[in-house]
Amino acid sequence: MPRSDSRAADQLREISFEPDIAPHATGSVLVSFGKTRVICAATIQDEVPRWMKVQGVQGGWLTAEYSMLPYSTLDRKDRDISRGKLDGRSQEIQRLIGRSLRAVVDLKKLGSRTLWIDCDVLQADGGTRTASITGACVAATMAFNRLLAKGTLREQPMTRKVAAISVGIYKNEALLDLCYEEDRDAEVDCNLVMTEDGRFVEIQGSGEESTFTDEQLAAMLVLGKKGIKELCALQSAAIEAAAPAKGIAKAAPKSNVDVASLEAAFKKL
Amino acid sequence: MPRSDSRAADQLREISFEPDIAPHATGSVLVSFGKTRVICAATIQDEVPRWMKVQGVQGGWLTAEYSMLPYSTLDRKDRDISRGKLDGRSQEIQRLIGRSLRAVVDLKKLGSRTLWIDCDVLQADGGTRTASITGACVAATMAFNRLLAKGTLREQPMTRKVAAISVGIYKNEALLDLCYEEDRDAEVDCNLVMTEDGRFVEIQGSGEESTFTDEQLAAMLVLGKKGIKELCALQSAAIEAAAPAKGIAKAAPKSNVDVASLEAAFKKL
Amino acid sequence: MPRSDSRAADQLREISFEPDIAPHATGSVLVSFGKTRVICAATIQDEVPRWMKVQGVQGGWLTAEYSMLPYSTLDRKDRDISRGKLDGRSQEIQRLIGRSLRAVVDLKKLGSRTLWIDCDVLQADGGTRTASITGACVAATMAFNRLLAKGTLREQPMTRKVAAISVGIYKNEALLDLCYEEDRDAEVDCNLVMTEDGRFVEIQGSGEESTFTDEQLAAMLVLGKKGIKELCALQSAAIEAAAPAKGIAKAAPKSNVDVASLEAAFKKL
Amino acid sequence: MPRSDSRAADQLREISFEPDIAPHATGSVLVSFGKTRVICAATIQDEVPRWMKVQGVQGGWLTAEYSMLPYSTLDRKDRDISRGKLDGRSQEIQRLIGRSLRAVVDLKKLGSRTLWIDCDVLQADGGTRTASITGACVAATMAFNRLLAKGTLREQPMTRKVAAISVGIYKNEALLDLCYEEDRDAEVDCNLVMTEDGRFVEIQGSGEESTFTDEQLAAMLVLGKKGIKELCALQSAAIEAAAPAKGIAKAAPKSNVDVASLEAAFKKL
Amino acid sequence: MPRSDSRAADQLREISFEPDIAPHATGSVLVSFGKTRVICAATIQDEVPRWMKVQGVQGGWLTAEYSMLPYSTLDRKDRDISRGKLDGRSQEIQRLIGRSLRAVVDLKKLGSRTLWIDCDVLQADGGTRTASITGACVAATMAFNRLLAKGTLREQPMTRKVAAISVGIYKNEALLDLCYEEDRDAEVDCNLVMTEDGRFVEIQGSGEESTFTDEQLAAMLVLGKKGIKELCALQSAAIEAAAPAKGIAKAAPKSNVDVASLEAAFKKL
Amino acid sequence: MPRSDSRAADQLREISFEPDIAPHATGSVLVSFGKTRVICAATIQDEVPRWMKVQGVQGGWLTAEYSMLPYSTLDRKDRDISRGKLDGRSQEIQRLIGRSLRAVVDLKKLGSRTLWIDCDVLQADGGTRTASITGACVAATMAFNRLLAKGTLREQPMTRKVAAISVGIYKNEALLDLCYEEDRDAEVDCNLVMTEDGRFVEIQGSGEESTFTDEQLAAMLVLGKKGIKELCALQSAAIEAAAPAKGIAKAAPKSNVDVASLEAAFKKL
Repeated sequence: MPRSDSRAADQLREISFEPDIAPHATGSVLVSFGKTRVICAATIQDEVPRWMKVQGVQGGWLTAEYSMLPYSTLDRKDRDISRGKLDGRSQEIQRLIGRSLRAVVDLKKLGSRTLWIDCDVLQADGGTRTASITGACVAATMAFNRLLAKGTLREQPMTRKVAAISVGIYKNEALLDLCYEEDRDAEVDCNLVMTEDGRFVEIQGSGEESTFTDEQLAAMLVLGKKGIKELCALQSAAIEAAAPAKGIAKAAPKSNVDVASLEAAFKKL
Repeated sequence: MPRSDSRAADQLREISFEPDIAPHATGSVLVSFGKTRVICAATIQDEVPRWMKVQGVQGGWLTAEYSMLPYSTLDRKDRDISRGKLDGRSQEIQRLIGRSLRAVVDLKKLGSRTLWIDCDVLQADGGTRTASITGACVAATMAFNRLLAKGTLREQPMTRKVAAISVGIYKNEALLDLCYEEDRDAEVDCNLVMTEDGRFVEIQGSGEESTFTDEQLAAMLVLGKKGIKELCALQSAAIEAAAPAKGIAKAAPKSNVDVASLEAAFKKL
Repeated sequence: MPRSDSRAADQLREISFEPDIAPHATGSVLVSFGKTRVICAATIQDEVPRWMKVQGVQGGWLTAEYSMLPYSTLDRKDRDISRGKLDGRSQEIQRLIGRSLRAVVDLKKLGSRTLWIDCDVLQADGGTRTASITGACVAATMAFNRLLAKGTLREQPMTRKVAAISVGIYKNEALLDLCYEEDRDAEVDCNLVMTEDGRFVEIQGSGEESTFTDEQLAAMLVLGKKGIKELCALQSAAIEAAAPAKGIAKAAPKSNVDVASLEAAFKKL
Repeated sequence: MPRSDSRAADQLREISFEPDIAPHATGSVLVSFGKTRVICAATIQDEVPRWMKVQGVQGGWLTAEYSMLPYSTLDRKDRDISRGKLDGRSQEIQRLIGRSLRAVVDLKKLGSRTLWIDCDVLQADGGTRTASITGACVAATMAFNRLLAKGTLREQPMTRKVAAISVGIYKNEALLDLCYEEDRDAEVDCNLVMTEDGRFVEIQGSGEESTFTDEQLAAMLVLGKKGIKELCALQSAAIEAAAPAKGIAKAAPKSNVDVASLEAAFKKL
Repeated sequence: MPRSDSRAADQLREISFEPDIAPHATGSVLVSFGKTRVICAATIQDEVPRWMKVQGVQGGWLTAEYSMLPYSTLDRKDRDISRGKLDGRSQEIQRLIGRSLRAVVDLKKLGSRTLWIDCDVLQADGGTRTASITGACVAATMAFNRLLAKGTLREQPMTRKVAAISVGIYKNEALLDLCYEEDRDAEVDCNLVMTEDGRFVEIQGSGEESTFTDEQLAAMLVLGKKGIKELCALQSAAIEAAAPAKGIAKAAPKSNVDVASLEAAFKKL
Repeated sequence: MPRSDSRAADQLREISFEPDIAPHATGSVLVSFGKTRVICAATIQDEVPRWMKVQGVQGGWLTAEYSMLPYSTLDRKDRDISRGKLDGRSQEIQRLIGRSLRAVVDLKKLGSRTLWIDCDVLQADGGTRTASITGACVAATMAFNRLLAKGTLREQPMTRKVAAISVGIYKNEALLDLCYEEDRDAEVDCNLVMTEDGRFVEIQGSGEESTFTDEQLAAMLVLGKKGIKELCALQSAAIEAAAPAKGIAKAAPKSNVDVASLEAAFKKL
């Protein structure tokens, strides 16, 4: 069955990273997953949250905020401040972004600093959380590279790249990188956050008030791993284009989509 | 390596359901997963949310709220109203409980009614969200059975039972049903929500700011499926004890822990 | 005129105290006044409010919070956090609980600590505030006894027991310990908080948007004093059952219901 | 022992009512109890609260709001809106004002209207709640008289006057109408709300975290009844001065301080 | 065209200042611009905002709050706390009052203190912001004079007086000091804040969703300067009446309404 | 004295309009005034505010919201939702944007629709409110042109263009279009909102807690009128480039910067 935008089932949308969309941030990027566009900014602040001081925790902190601009959706979405509170969905997403980035950042190398990750959705067409994580990794790396160049940081805190992609079951077929229409109608929706060396950071699969089987889960995982591999390559290119990376070991992308290892793992059980 | 409470790696804590803890609710249960104890109440209300009326959606609705009582934790936890907002973690959990129950309730059979699921944690020792979902399914079924007995409902809205369990990787070993200490120190934490016939409703695995492999994911899934099977049997006993169920087809529990089918699924890829 | 539950006009409902309902609290009890059931928890915290530090006040503090669980009423009651604020009635009640307990606790003997009293209503059938105060006294005493046993406290801060009961005028008759239906229809509603030695802590009588006479007030006070005497005896038994009390002088309950003294007082005017 | 302002123990402070302090209100008065000064305004609104419409309740409503102006206290008090919420004490007082006025207003005679009672403290020196109730009764009566004169109302909704006064035990002596210093140091504090014909509307006595005896309660009640009698006479004079009252039967103030009846009542027990 | 209250186009309403309306404030005044009446209170507090301490800024601070009492308008206005937030208009006005006063107060001479300016509208009939600024200057000066007399301050912080007036274009005619009806129907509305020596502090002109010309702006400025001159003379009289001013140089009011200088200024361009 | 960026005193920064930055809005533009960059979006909604329905007002509505993205400033600015309320400055600005646009939009021609104007600052370097108004006019016109082309609207609601610019006195010299550093240090700050035919919509001049003279005001007005003329020409070009305008009469820009008329106006006084 053909997809609405003629993509193959295992094909990503067009991915791009426009650097320095917000020049006052330490690092920033406008990431696009097709029509989904998110401003990702990484801003360094020379202090840590109060709880770290109180508890005497060393090193730095990383926190994320996510918001949809009111004109990002087809029908205008009220601002959080107009409704008086952050909606539950936004809270879940910003907590996910924070955990995902902290999985690949060595907070001790930040010193007594906080890195703020801000993701503001300019246009929403499905996959805003995966675009946010993928773009935030690029923005944060650009920020770290600048702080290394200035001598503010001595060692690269980014241990390896992290990216995220959605997969789903739509009309009984596993699809990669769902656009809004596919996401709305999918029977199953799954978001994968993985590192460039093929390890899971998060897996969130939901039957969207329905259910799914082992076979469907396995099919989605294989597609997702393929997408993550491609995203990491594109992240590397964007970071290189902006400024030469410092201190991040070259990823060995070959190994991270070894479908055989996934199958083997389950066979051993 | 022995567990702190001497359980085997694949062993649940002691599970119990004390019915009618809150008699003004339509159905209620005090569920215990070891020392974790949660009041689960299901209350029927003869109206639906405004958005359903506005959009002209037929049938009923099910919504869930989750809260930790201030004395449920080792250090007293401020009430939500004292902090002025629901914390992000509670919001995530109550959204998860709602989605999980809606996956097994046929809302059309509710009529123009809302079923409120309230989960209030009386004692927290790890796994409060999984105990909440598992208990909420019992409370809701008890509520439905009473409404069927009274003639308020004509058909059973519960299509099959749903339960939830945590699994994790702790010191490189996969463990079932983590208590607080294990959960706090685990490298990987995964919550599974599944139906009694062995289908996934939700899978949420997180490296807790670290990462995990395919093999570890597969090991956790196998353990989790075993736990879900046992929980569903205990739910059935609790519901039967309270009042004879009406209109729920007997589950076929044999099929739901067929590890072979899981392995087979991945082999086909 | 017979009461709905066949009690005599001066008869309490069935009173019970189930200890350790919330084991993570320092002391806790599930108190029942008939169908009214309240979780009362006393939790110690090793710090005092900021205003005490700022003003340099020595000793400890005691603060109370009261809430009705959403399924405690016949029609589900929205949570405070959903309405965005604590309702006025709950605020009044928790302030009353705090004042009542502070009247019998020697805060200096607490050291630089706060005792949190939490009262969560599990089932509401009239008299939730009087059950809360009566149960909170038991929970707090159990907490103090444990802290004395551990050596955290050196002297018993509880100076004597405090209890509370409602009285009212219903169809021109004075009644003790009103249930919900009686309370709803009563012409006059009065809550008494008294110590075990027969002294008033608080008296709150309201014509509920109507009025009442001297004679009615006097009749209610006599009934109330009788109820308080009985409650204090039941509190003592519950505390003794949980653990031997330390440092509280045996109450002399005989003197606290001396109706003659009340009459005499007014005659002297 | 002489009082700080040389009053006798049973003597009110100087009481005055300055009419029409806020001309846009339907009725208003600046009431003074010595240095305590409160703006009391009664404003009619041609609609009733939503809950009355929903429940189909006939007649009108009366609601009260109480606030301390920031410069009313010796140390400036933050506005409610700056702290983000109404404090518990203000909520209790405005609920008390509302109940007290509703006890003497026949809401059915209001038609489908709401009477708003606003009490804003201009200067606080003890007894702001009693001054508020006493002044609100005058403001409301002035408002009703005007609406009767205009023909908006057909019958007088005020059934009789209501007033309030504080009494307390200070250095073992019962005192009437406590000023701030006496109130702050009093062992017992009691507020009485009574009608001009000597009936109780509310009695709120508190040991202020201490306790009190039957004798002390009786002594306070006698003093309070004397004060209420005098206040009602002053209210009448103020209302008459503003405009001739319509439809309120002349009070028979002689009977309302019959101390003998109080004593007799208790003797009969 | 005659004005509704028969004033000339360049005539102020009747202006008055009633001192010490709120005796607990350091200085206070009830200012009237015709029927518009505002309580203006100046209260000194012995501390500065946290941001001044954090940033190490020397001297004191001045902050203003503005609120309309609910009965100040023809239709009752809900309190800010009932709506849960300060409305935008009130915020604008209180920011304007604060800036206007800070333009004439030497904050260094305050020491480490905050002067709170509170403006509460008792009756609104147009021009509440201009009455607030004009009254606040009087209240603040009275407060400073008292603190100088007590020796708390050594030097007068008020450098010169400030006043404010509204001007507008109504039916093509420039009018001074608009009442509510004129303000509501005016094509153009302009508020001027000026010092007694004829300098601008703020000018805020708005076509009220319409537009205006250079000629109209010039005509309004001339009228406004005349009004400011008269207001400053009245302020001086009020302050002198309350207590002899200390340390404010006599204003030279002759120079501050020199229309010729305004014309000359533009001719030079 | 040379400006930091070498501009002449009467020279605008580089102005640009990037169309369709947010494609889900009906019209949108990224406006740049030098380094100040603001996303301006105009979104149509097929309903009007509740107060219009209640009051039976015909036609449509236009409302504006303004926000600074957290990474738009040199030091990260907390989101409104994190601080729990919209700050006073943002409220003032969004009210100004709304009034300015409503001055040039014929709301009756909108039908029963609301036009939302959203201005989100991506980079702040002074003049964000003037850039917002200037960009919002372009976005709204683009939105109207599209709705005309689709036939949703029949007549052009935009009656003429509106633009805004800042002027100030910095080191005694009048400057046009202040950047952040100039704005921060300026003695006087003035914002002008004007239509393309040379009429004022708003003038807001503030001595920033200092004062200014007639001559300084006149000098600023002349500079501002020159800037507005240039901005309107640039707006026209941007709108034409996006799509041919429909139904807006060509502006006659010659007449709108006639300094002579300004001088003449004041001479006539």
